[in-house]
Amino acid sequence: MSHHAAIYRGEKKFSIDEVEINAPGPGEVQVEVAYCGICGTDLHIYLGHMDGRVGFERTIGHEMSGVIAAIGEGVAGLQPGQHIVVRPLDHCGACPACSAGHEHICHNLKFIGIDSDGAFQQYWNVPAHTIHILPEELNLAHAALIEPLAVAVHDVDRGQVRKGEDVLVIGGGPIGMLVAMVARQAGANVTVSEINENRLAFAQKIGFATLNPKDIDVAAEIHKVTNGKGADVVFEVSGSQPGVDLMTAAASTRGRIVMVAIHATKPQIDMFQFFWRELDLIGARVYRPEDYDKAMKLLAEGVIDCDAFITDIQHLSEIQTAFETLTQNPNAMKSMIRISEKY
Amino acid sequence: MSHHAAIYRGEKKFSIDEVEINAPGPGEVQVEVAYCGICGTDLHIYLGHMDGRVGFERTIGHEMSGVIAAIGEGVAGLQPGQHIVVRPLDHCGACPACSAGHEHICHNLKFIGIDSDGAFQQYWNVPAHTIHILPEELNLAHAALIEPLAVAVHDVDRGQVRKGEDVLVIGGGPIGMLVAMVARQAGANVTVSEINENRLAFAQKIGFATLNPKDIDVAAEIHKVTNGKGADVVFEVSGSQPGVDLMTAAASTRGRIVMVAIHATKPQIDMFQFFWRELDLIGARVYRPEDYDKAMKLLAEGVIDCDAFITDIQHLSEIQTAFETLTQNPNAMKSMIRISEKY
Repeated sequence: MSHHAAIYRGEKKFSIDEVEINAPGPGEVQVEVAYCGICGTDLHIYLGHMDGRVGFERTIGHEMSGVIAAIGEGVAGLQPGQHIVVRPLDHCGACPACSAGHEHICHNLKFIGIDSDGAFQQYWNVPAHTIHILPEELNLAHAALIEPLAVAVHDVDRGQVRKGEDVLVIGGGPIGMLVAMVARQAGANVTVSEINENRLAFAQKIGFATLNPKDIDVAAEIHKVTNGKGADVVFEVSGSQPGVDLMTAAASTRGRIVMVAIHATKPQIDMFQFFWRELDLIGARVYRPEDYDKAMKLLAEGVIDCDAFITDIQHLSEIQTAFETLTQNPNAMKSMIRISEKY
Repeated sequence: MSHHAAIYRGEKKFSIDEVEINAPGPGEVQVEVAYCGICGTDLHIYLGHMDGRVGFERTIGHEMSGVIAAIGEGVAGLQPGQHIVVRPLDHCGACPACSAGHEHICHNLKFIGIDSDGAFQQYWNVPAHTIHILPEELNLAHAALIEPLAVAVHDVDRGQVRKGEDVLVIGGGPIGMLVAMVARQAGANVTVSEINENRLAFAQKIGFATLNPKDIDVAAEIHKVTNGKGADVVFEVSGSQPGVDLMTAAASTRGRIVMVAIHATKPQIDMFQFFWRELDLIGARVYRPEDYDKAMKLLAEGVIDCDAFITDIQHLSEIQTAFETLTQNPNAMKSMIRISEKY
């Protein structure tokens, strides 16, 4: 039996190869992939930023949904036909982080879909411990949002957002918008700071207050509308120097700042404000199993307007075009690849 | 009745003036000051770094002990003759920080001894709410260490240091060493990173493991001795770029970094590590009333070797020499001014 897999070949190119389907190994589950979204990290890979880590024979993709096709030796409690999502983290179980119960940030963490093959292929073998079973009735295209939504759930959990708190999200891309939606669900008053007019329009359309730093002093405005208090929780999702300048300026005394963005260079940070106002900067990376459970619950409850969030759905054979379009169109929220015609 | 007060006159000069003693106003307590230590902030004032805030008619000093001399109108529960220390913070009670219960970092906080007159004078009127009553048997020279010790107690509390944890203190000056002692008392394994040989010798003398970044890669050594884990809690007390570089490099996954130092410029910070290892940066400033209570308790229990910590004691009339000597001798831990010959 053979199937189709998209393989990253370097220099912004994918090949769609027809390859043999391997049977699931011991402890593995074979998943027939239904949908797989394109993550910002996938774009980085496509643009060649991660060639050293990824190589040129990798099937990428990790924001997926699918159906169990087969079960490997020694796997209990799962069966073919179940609708599932994969939490694409494989931890070592032996390092100091794993020993302390922080498996999701294991020192030797393998991210499935980056460090090993991912979901832009029809049949995908994954460790059984990565599987979360979906409710049957959940739309599988929507379910492919669970991975990025779990990121947002983890971020909001790290920030300990409470009902009635004032929250500022710096950066209104896909993760920023999901963070905003989860924080709103937690009862917070959420404002989104963003410079892209299309993203601002999207944020407004789904009901958020927005501020454009090109037009207004965002920190001053936040302090003004909160009667001098500032934002109780700030999410830095921009990965920019203006973003980190704003995060310290807009936070309240004892405010929590959640570092969601990946800063490739070392920005200058106003450390004095951390001392003076006893700020708290909290790093947040990927998700824990319970974040997946919560994301599934929020999705099922309709907290996310999935149809608005999914900008377009294209077929696996069109993956090259999908990536090309996305890099030329920073206005898209989520581009989704339909891997199987069945779902 | 007149008394002597040291007054900062600018350009590294104090005058010792004979001035009228004012009676305590309503809600005030008159304290006969016994001892007052010289804080790093006092040195900054002496060196002219804070002239705009302090002016040239200010009696500074806030690391004090004393005895109640008189009671103003409306003050209950206090009486002359009681040994006391003053927690030199005057908050507004109305700002968002005060409303949230964070009076110690009030938006309009007045620091007594900087923003109003301090303890380098014989008789000192202070708001009654700033008073903490000492046990009679506590040595008053030792009790003048309670203010900086309360800073350290607050820092260790913010870092939530637990028994058995590995702690790195970056910077072995007076506050760094007090943080080290309080963290050790909490059951932590404490290492001090410092470049000054005399301070290293002091730290070793009182039983701490030390590392000199001039001789060794401190982060690598910390990871080595903790079997790859890193420091559970890092206190950044150096206020330097190498200090903030070390704090992120030495911390464990999910490590807590307490920002004790005052960074006058914006250092470059390895934000990626906050994301990647879910680090937590926690600002810590001054103290809360309970930190004073704990500092008094630790001092009474002999946790601090006060006689080793107090480098020298000089009379109020020698304050000019004391400041001159201290700026020329960065090896001193705590220089103390004896304000009253009685104690």
